[in-house]
Amino acid sequence: MALKIACGQIEIIAGRPDLNTKKMLQLINLARKESVDILVFPELAIPGALIGDLWEQNAFLKDCETYGQQVIAATQGITVVFGNVAIDWKRKNKDGHVRKYNAAFTALDGKLISTEQGLDYVAKTALPAYRQFDDPRYFSGQETLLKDKRISLKNGMGSVTATIRNVKYKLGLLLGEDTWTEATPLSVPFMLKQGGAEILCNLSSSTFTLGKNSKRHIIFGKQAKELQMPVVYCNHTGIQNTGKNIYTFDGQSCVYGPDGMVKAAAPMFEEKLLIFSWDKDTEKIRAYSAEDELIATEDDETAIIYKTIRYGTGLFLKQTGIKRMVLGASGGIDSAVTAALFTDILGPHQVLLVNMPSRYNSELTKNLAQQLAENLGCCYTIVPINDSVSHTVEQLYTPIHNYTTNRDFKVELNGIMYENIQARDRGSRILAGFSAAFKGGISCNANKAEITVGYGTFYGDLIGLFCPMGDLWKYQVYALGRYINEYVYKRRVIPEPVFTIRPSAELSQEQTVGNGGDPLVYEYHDYLLRAFVENWEKISPADILKHYIDQDLEAFLGCDEGLIARLFPSHAAFCQDLERWYGLFTGLAVAKRIQAPPVLSLSKRAFGTDCREAQMTTYYSLDYKEMKDKLLVQERLF
Amino acid sequence: MALKIACGQIEIIAGRPDLNTKKMLQLINLARKESVDILVFPELAIPGALIGDLWEQNAFLKDCETYGQQVIAATQGITVVFGNVAIDWKRKNKDGHVRKYNAAFTALDGKLISTEQGLDYVAKTALPAYRQFDDPRYFSGQETLLKDKRISLKNGMGSVTATIRNVKYKLGLLLGEDTWTEATPLSVPFMLKQGGAEILCNLSSSTFTLGKNSKRHIIFGKQAKELQMPVVYCNHTGIQNTGKNIYTFDGQSCVYGPDGMVKAAAPMFEEKLLIFSWDKDTEKIRAYSAEDELIATEDDETAIIYKTIRYGTGLFLKQTGIKRMVLGASGGIDSAVTAALFTDILGPHQVLLVNMPSRYNSELTKNLAQQLAENLGCCYTIVPINDSVSHTVEQLYTPIHNYTTNRDFKVELNGIMYENIQARDRGSRILAGFSAAFKGGISCNANKAEITVGYGTFYGDLIGLFCPMGDLWKYQVYALGRYINEYVYKRRVIPEPVFTIRPSAELSQEQTVGNGGDPLVYEYHDYLLRAFVENWEKISPADILKHYIDQDLEAFLGCDEGLIARLFPSHAAFCQDLERWYGLFTGLAVAKRIQAPPVLSLSKRAFGTDCREAQMTTYYSLDYKEMKDKLLVQERLF
Repeated sequence: MALKIACGQIEIIAGRPDLNTKKMLQLINLARKESVDILVFPELAIPGALIGDLWEQNAFLKDCETYGQQVIAATQGITVVFGNVAIDWKRKNKDGHVRKYNAAFTALDGKLISTEQGLDYVAKTALPAYRQFDDPRYFSGQETLLKDKRISLKNGMGSVTATIRNVKYKLGLLLGEDTWTEATPLSVPFMLKQGGAEILCNLSSSTFTLGKNSKRHIIFGKQAKELQMPVVYCNHTGIQNTGKNIYTFDGQSCVYGPDGMVKAAAPMFEEKLLIFSWDKDTEKIRAYSAEDELIATEDDETAIIYKTIRYGTGLFLKQTGIKRMVLGASGGIDSAVTAALFTDILGPHQVLLVNMPSRYNSELTKNLAQQLAENLGCCYTIVPINDSVSHTVEQLYTPIHNYTTNRDFKVELNGIMYENIQARDRGSRILAGFSAAFKGGISCNANKAEITVGYGTFYGDLIGLFCPMGDLWKYQVYALGRYINEYVYKRRVIPEPVFTIRPSAELSQEQTVGNGGDPLVYEYHDYLLRAFVENWEKISPADILKHYIDQDLEAFLGCDEGLIARLFPSHAAFCQDLERWYGLFTGLAVAKRIQAPPVLSLSKRAFGTDCREAQMTTYYSLDYKEMKDKLLVQERLF
Repeated sequence: MALKIACGQIEIIAGRPDLNTKKMLQLINLARKESVDILVFPELAIPGALIGDLWEQNAFLKDCETYGQQVIAATQGITVVFGNVAIDWKRKNKDGHVRKYNAAFTALDGKLISTEQGLDYVAKTALPAYRQFDDPRYFSGQETLLKDKRISLKNGMGSVTATIRNVKYKLGLLLGEDTWTEATPLSVPFMLKQGGAEILCNLSSSTFTLGKNSKRHIIFGKQAKELQMPVVYCNHTGIQNTGKNIYTFDGQSCVYGPDGMVKAAAPMFEEKLLIFSWDKDTEKIRAYSAEDELIATEDDETAIIYKTIRYGTGLFLKQTGIKRMVLGASGGIDSAVTAALFTDILGPHQVLLVNMPSRYNSELTKNLAQQLAENLGCCYTIVPINDSVSHTVEQLYTPIHNYTTNRDFKVELNGIMYENIQARDRGSRILAGFSAAFKGGISCNANKAEITVGYGTFYGDLIGLFCPMGDLWKYQVYALGRYINEYVYKRRVIPEPVFTIRPSAELSQEQTVGNGGDPLVYEYHDYLLRAFVENWEKISPADILKHYIDQDLEAFLGCDEGLIARLFPSHAAFCQDLERWYGLFTGLAVAKRIQAPPVLSLSKRAFGTDCREAQMTTYYSLDYKEMKDKLLVQERLF
C-alpha cells in the first residue's frame, strides 16, 4: 500500500520559535486530516536559520528545545520529521560555547524515534562556510557527534525507521548542503544508501539564488537516479537576513523519483502542504493534487527577478512594520522601476515620489518624474534644492579661526564637492525629513554597478531602509522596467523616454542627460564588474588583461562584440579604464558599502555578508604588471 | 652552546605581500648581522590575515607563493620560520575553492626544511570560527592535510628539525589558536611534546583585546611549565580590518621559559627584532638586550585604551591617506575626547572643530566647545543651523499631490522629527560639506552605549570615517578624558565642566544640559548593556530579571549598589525600562548599526563582524514572561 508523505512548506520567521511552532502545529493538524503518514518540515524550522549570534543566548536555545517538545507532543498518529537546533548542554563547541547541532528530529505518537544508532537526532554533516553561511561558527557536525558517541562514521549516517501500518520504512535524513555533494569530502546520500535507506528526506533552509533551482533539479535528480530511490526536498518560504543582506527563501519543495524526475512540486514563495504518495514496491510516486503534478515552468529571468523582489520587498516591509515608502524621483530608470515596484506592493496612496530639482535638472527629466507619478497614481511633490544648496555653500565659507596661529581662513569648494552637497541635500535633508513625516521608509535606488564602484554619495543617494535593486546590474534594471510595463501594469507606467535617455546624475553643467551622462558605460562596465564580483573563481585585473590580449574578452565577459575596440582607442586607455574601476571597486567603494543599506540578494554573490571585504589598498598582481608593461612598450614602439 | 633565536615583530599590511615581503627581507638581513640562528615571523606574515574574500582570487594567491619563494631564497646562513598561505592547487577546500592552509614554512640556505613527516609546511589545526574570525571559510586544517597524505594524526603534528652548528633542534610549530587549548578537542602543544619537540614556536596574528595579554601570559606560561620547554610567541603590529571592525595588532612577542615566566618581551605596537638566547642543555633563556628583559608593566586599563586608540587611529588615518579631521564640537565629553585624540595624532592645524548651535544649545556648552578649541589650538568655526532647519521644515510642508484622488495634502511634523532634522542638518549638511572642503575625515563620536541602543540619528550623528570610541562605554569615555588631561596634555585641555554637566543632546526644550539630559542613565545602563553585549554567555532579559528578583543584579552587572532601588520605584518600572532598552538593542539599533561607520575594536565583543546580527523582531523567552508575570501580580496584590 502506498504511503502518504507531505512536505510542510511553511513560512519561517527567524528568531521566533513561538510563531514557527504555532504554524507547524497547525500544519500537523491539517496533515492528519489528510491522512498523511509522514510529514517533513524544513531545516531549523523552529528557530530559523539566519539569526546571527543569537545562537549564543541560552535562554533562546532553551525555548527552542521547549517548542521542539511541543511539536513532538503533537504527533499522535503521524510521523513528523522536523529541523531544530539540538543542544548537548554537557559538551562544548570548539569555541567553548555550548555544543549545538543543526539537526533533524523524528517523532510519532508523542515520542521521539531514535536513529538506527540510538541517537535522538541526525546532525548536519556538511556545514557550509561560504557565501552568507557561517555554520561552523555555531554548529558541530554529525562527524563530531558520532566521534563523541564512539560510533563509526560508516554506520553513523542518520537513518530512522518509521513503522506505518506494520511496514517498516527506512528514512535517510539529510540537511541542506548534505545533498549538494559536488565538493564535499563525504557523500552523505551514498552512505545513507549503503546503510539501507529506502527514501532520502532533505530538510532545507535554502535561500533563493538566480539559477539555483535548475541546478538543484540536476544534482538532486541525478542522485535519486544513481541511488535508485526517491529524494524528498523540503524547503520553506519567507525572508531572513544577515544584517547586510536580505534573503528570500523560495520554497519549491518537491520530490524526485528514482528516474531522476520531479514527481510533485510546491510553488515558489507560497506556503503549501505538498502531499504525494509513494509505493515502495512499485516505486510509483504520485502527486496528491493535480496542480502539484505540474512542475512550474521556469519563467524567464526577468519574470523570476520581479517575482522575487516583489515577494522579498513586500515581506521585509511587513516584518519591519513599514506601510509607506518615500522615493526620490529623478526621471531616471532606477527610481522609476522602484516607484512602480512599491506602488504594486503598497498601493499608490502609500508611495510618495519627491522630485528635487536643482538648476541642473532638465525639463525633460522633471516632466518624466511627474508623468511617472501620474501614471502610477502616486503621491507626488516637488521640492527645489537651489536655496538650500546656496545657503550651505555660503555657510561653508564661514571664516574658520586657527587658534594656534590666531588667524582666520576659509575653505574652497570645487565641482565634485558641489555635486555631493546636492546629493546629500536631497537625501539626508528632504527625503529623510519626508520619511519621518510621511511615516515611510526611504528606498535606496542604487544598482549593483553603482554599488560596485561606489558611484553614489555617502549620506546622499546611498541612504535608505534597503536597496531593492542593489543586486541587479543596470541591464537587468532596464529589463525589469520593460517587464513592469508589459506584464505587471500592462500599460506604459514608466514613460518610454526613461528607457532611452542617457543615464545621468544631473549634478553639474557637464553632467546632464543631454550633455554627458554617467561615467559608467553600462554596456561594457556592467559585464566587467560582474566578472569581478560574481565569477566563482574571483577574477583579477590580470585575468581581464590576459583575455584582452588574447582578444576574447568580450566573449569572456558576455558583452557585445566590437565594443572594446570602439570604447578604447589604445591599450593604455584600456588599462587606465580597468585600473580606474578596479581601484574604486577595491578602494573607496568598500568604505561606502560598509555604510550602505542592506541589499536584497538575488545573484550568486551579493555585496554584504555574502562577499566579505576589508578596507585595503588596491593590489595589482605581478603578472598584471608584467603583461601591462609589455603591452604598453609595444604600443609606444609601433 | 646557546642558540640565538629572534622574533621578527614587524608591521603587517593586509593584502600587500609585496610590502610585507620587503619588510621581512630587511629583517632577515638585520638578524643575520646579529648572528641570529633562528628567526621566527608571525602568522600569515606575507598576505596578512584579515583580507576578506580576497582569499578567493588566484592571482593574489600565486603572488603570495612567489613572495614566499623570495623569503626562502633569502635564508643563507639563517633558519627562518614564517607564516604564509600554503596552496594545494590540485585539491579543493570543502566549498570547492582551491585548497588553502594557514601555514608555517621553515627555510635555511635558500631551501625549505621539510617537517618530520616530509611535508613542506605545518598547517594550523585550530581554525577559529568565532568573534571576527572566519578561518574555516578559507582554510583547511592540519587534520585534513594529514588525512590526504595518509599520515596518522598522532605522528602528524608539525615538528621541524633545524641543524645549527651540528646540533639538532626539534622545533614544534604552531599557529595562533593552536596554543589556546582551553576548549579545543586536540592539544597541539601536548602532541608536539609527545613527538619530541624541544621548543614551541607559536606564529600569531593576534588582535589586541583588553585583558588578552595577561590571559595569554597565564595560558602560554602554564603550557611552557607543564611541557617543560620554552614557548616562543611571535605576533606582529599594525592594523587590519573586517570592514565593520578595525583591529590593532599589539605585537608583544615574547618567550616563556620552562618555569612559565616571560624571559624576554617586545613592546606593544612597535616593530622589533626581539633576540634572546636559549641553551637547551642548561635550559637558560636570556634576553639579548637589557630593555627586553623587562616585561612591560601592565599599565592601567585607561592608559592601555589610550595607547591602543591612538595607535589604531593614527595608522588607520595613515593607511586611508587622511591627514585632517572634522568634528562636530557640542561641548560634551564625547566630542571633547575625540578632538583631543585627533589633535594629539595630527596636530592642531589639521583638526577642525565645528560648533553648530540651534536655539536649544546653551551658552554653557557653546562656550565649552570654544574653550576646548582654544585649549587644543585647533581650527574652529561656528555655523548656526537655525535658518536651514526652518527652511527644511517649511519645505517639508510643501503640498503633496495625490494623483489617485487628485487632492493635495500636507505632512505633519512632531518633536522627534524636528530633533532628527537638526542632527542630520549638522552631520550630512555641514560636517560632510566641511569634510570635503577641509579635506578631512569625519569622526563619528558615538560611544558603545549609544550604539547599543541606537541613540543617535541615521545620517545625523551616526556618520563618519569611523568610530574611534565606538567600543567604549560612557564611563570609559569619561576616564579617557581625565587621562588625556593628566597624562597626554598634562593640562586641562578638556574644561572641567565637560566632565560634570549632565550629558544631553540639546535637541529640544525638554532636552538640555539644565533641563533633562540623555534618556540613558549611564551609571546603570552602561553596565546593563555591557552584560547584553560583552558577556561570554550571552545574557537575556530572563537572566537580568532573575538577578533582579534574587537582589544581586548590581553585583552581577558591576554597578553601584543601591542604584536600582533608587532608579526604579516599582517592579513594573524596572521591567518597562529593561524592555525599552532590550527592545531598542535588538530592534531599531540593529538597523542603525548596519549602516554605521566602522568601530575601532578594543573589547572582547565589538559591534560589527565580531558580533553578528540579523534584523529580527525582539524575542522574550518563556521564562522571562513567566517571571515577570509572577512579579507584577505580586506587586499588584500588595
